[in-house]
Amino acid sequence: MNTRYEHISILGLGAMGRALADALLGAGREVTVWNRSAGKAGELVARGAKEASSVGEAVAAGDLTVICLLDDASVRETLTPVLSDLTGTTLVNVTSGSVRQARALAGWLEGHGVRFLAGGIMAVPQSVGTPGAFILYSGPRDLFDRVAPVLGPMGRAHWVGEDAGFAALYDMAALSGMYGMGAGTDHAVTLVHAEGGDLETFKREVLRPWLEQMLPISVDGADASASVPDEYNPAMQAVGLENLLAASGEAGVPAELAGHLSASLWRMRRAVANG
Amino acid sequence: MNTRYEHISILGLGAMGRALADALLGAGREVTVWNRSAGKAGELVARGAKEASSVGEAVAAGDLTVICLLDDASVRETLTPVLSDLTGTTLVNVTSGSVRQARALAGWLEGHGVRFLAGGIMAVPQSVGTPGAFILYSGPRDLFDRVAPVLGPMGRAHWVGEDAGFAALYDMAALSGMYGMGAGTDHAVTLVHAEGGDLETFKREVLRPWLEQMLPISVDGADASASVPDEYNPAMQAVGLENLLAASGEAGVPAELAGHLSASLWRMRRAVANG
Ligand SMILES: NC(=O)c1ccc[n+]([C@@H]2O[C@H](COP(=O)([O-])OP(=O)(O)OC[C@H]3O[C@@H](n4cnc5c(N)ncnc54)[C@H](OP(=O)(O)O)[C@@H]3O)[C@@H](O)[C@H]2O)c1
Ligand SMILES: NC(=O)c1ccc[n+]([C@@H]2O[C@H](COP(=O)([O-])OP(=O)(O)OC[C@H]3O[C@@H](n4cnc5c(N)ncnc54)[C@H](OP(=O)(O)O)[C@@H]3O)[C@@H](O)[C@H]2O)c1
Repeated sequence: MNTRYEHISILGLGAMGRALADALLGAGREVTVWNRSAGKAGELVARGAKEASSVGEAVAAGDLTVICLLDDASVRETLTPVLSDLTGTTLVNVTSGSVRQARALAGWLEGHGVRFLAGGIMAVPQSVGTPGAFILYSGPRDLFDRVAPVLGPMGRAHWVGEDAGFAALYDMAALSGMYGMGAGTDHAVTLVHAEGGDLETFKREVLRPWLEQMLPISVDGADASASVPDEYNPAMQAVGLENLLAASGEAGVPAELAGHLSASLWRMRRAVANG
Repeated sequence: MNTRYEHISILGLGAMGRALADALLGAGREVTVWNRSAGKAGELVARGAKEASSVGEAVAAGDLTVICLLDDASVRETLTPVLSDLTGTTLVNVTSGSVRQARALAGWLEGHGVRFLAGGIMAVPQSVGTPGAFILYSGPRDLFDRVAPVLGPMGRAHWVGEDAGFAALYDMAALSGMYGMGAGTDHAVTLVHAEGGDLETFKREVLRPWLEQMLPISVDGADASASVPDEYNPAMQAVGLENLLAASGEAGVPAELAGHLSASLWRMRRAVANG
């Protein structure tokens, strides 16, 4: 049983698994990698990684194993055949999944004597290891404290609670925020383009500074009851949203792109109705 | 005919008109104000503004008149009775409206010999005059160049084109971006709350840094054809969005709040279908 983590194994060499391995190698860690299909380890091996020929071999080689596969089903499929070999090992799963999946996986593995930490990667492969990247972890705090310095090169390590589901919860919720921003920016440029505006000017001189100005307000003001504070003047915002929807339609913006406006309009109307 | 603008008149003392007047007074400008209903000018007069008893008197008092009323209809209703007195004056309309309304208003007023600039305020009343605030202007460039330094205290002046409709266009499109961000942040905190997460930790340590990291990517990557670059892996994102929608439903988040996710899912599916 190792409690000093110096050698890291990685299961899964998709775009993200390769980026994680690369960041760890770049920081001088010893790394062993495994992937279901052959041919993904070449560059990493050239940079000093060892390649394991089976999951069991990979887990045995590392003091700590990072799992980065497609989804929860692929994690279970990969671990089930070697379950009895996992007792006493440390696994960190950064594969995306739901809150319920993360809690069930933690229960299952801990029941087999695994020290388990759940993770959520707040980065894209290109940004792994850069200053903006961070990784959420949930599970036992003492385990996190020992693992965090070792995995630091993948992205700033951030513990969000004992509940194994919280990394997935915060990850998923933050993605929802990102998709909202994406729906908004996409709608915005489609509208500007449809009316003959200049996209580069709009993006650089209007959209970006405006969103930067509104980001803290949007985060601070976000409300779990979907209520709207009075000072937001929901009646006026509802009129504004109706005009914006009408203008988008007139300009020929596909109605499907306007889902974020419908969601906002629903909130404003509800706020007005609730007084 | 004045070409040096030293004395500014303001039509409309709603929350925004009052904030604009206040910022101009704070910078030492001479200001005359008018509002349809009485009783809104008190504080401004106490700070040195003059109050005009009619629209005509207000326009005559200023070298330049800023119009900040509810909507396009209220602007037309307010200006129509004094139309013949407007010839040779300079009007800057910062009332929100559509692209078509802005173009039509410019044509109508220029036809009556008015020097006209259309504006869009990228601020809320509380942020008027602060460093983040900016105001979009469109119309004749030479007029903007003379007006911008005078109105600077209201917010950084930003010219976006000769087309009188462009200030409204960029304003409306940027608002659409903001509503997307708002739909996303609102959905995000609703989800975290529903699953028992800690909202303050989530907002401060996850949502805000994540959105700050993704903002430039979201703006740069926004595409007017609503297409999705290959490196975004639209098939994987579509699966992720379906999971996120399912998880939101399971957690009891109202379906109406998820419009931004539906919009994003529509894009991803279209991108996959288009190859
Ligand atoms: N890419 C991103 O931007 C990003 C960002 C944050 C989080 N994530 C998460 O990170 C995880 C990996 O993403 P990725 O971008 O690396 O995906 P990817 O490029 O599609 O790679 C998927 C990996 O999973 C493996 N796999 C799939 N099914 C398997 C199974 N049944 N048994 C064993 N291995 C299996 C694949 O192996 P083969 O090579 O054999 O197919 C491959 O190594 C996902 O959960 C994703 O949501 C990704
Ligand atoms: N508030 C914001 O956050 C914000 C941000 C950006 C842009 N804007 C835009 O700024 C403009 C003003 O907003 P606001 O917040 O000041 O609104 P507001 O507080 O509701 O004030 C509306 C103003 O319009 C006047 N008005 C309405 N109908 C009129 C009519 N038929 N004839 C003459 N005057 C009329 C009102 O006069 P009475 O006092 O007589 O009713 C009042 O002065 C709007 O176009 C808004 O979209 C606002």
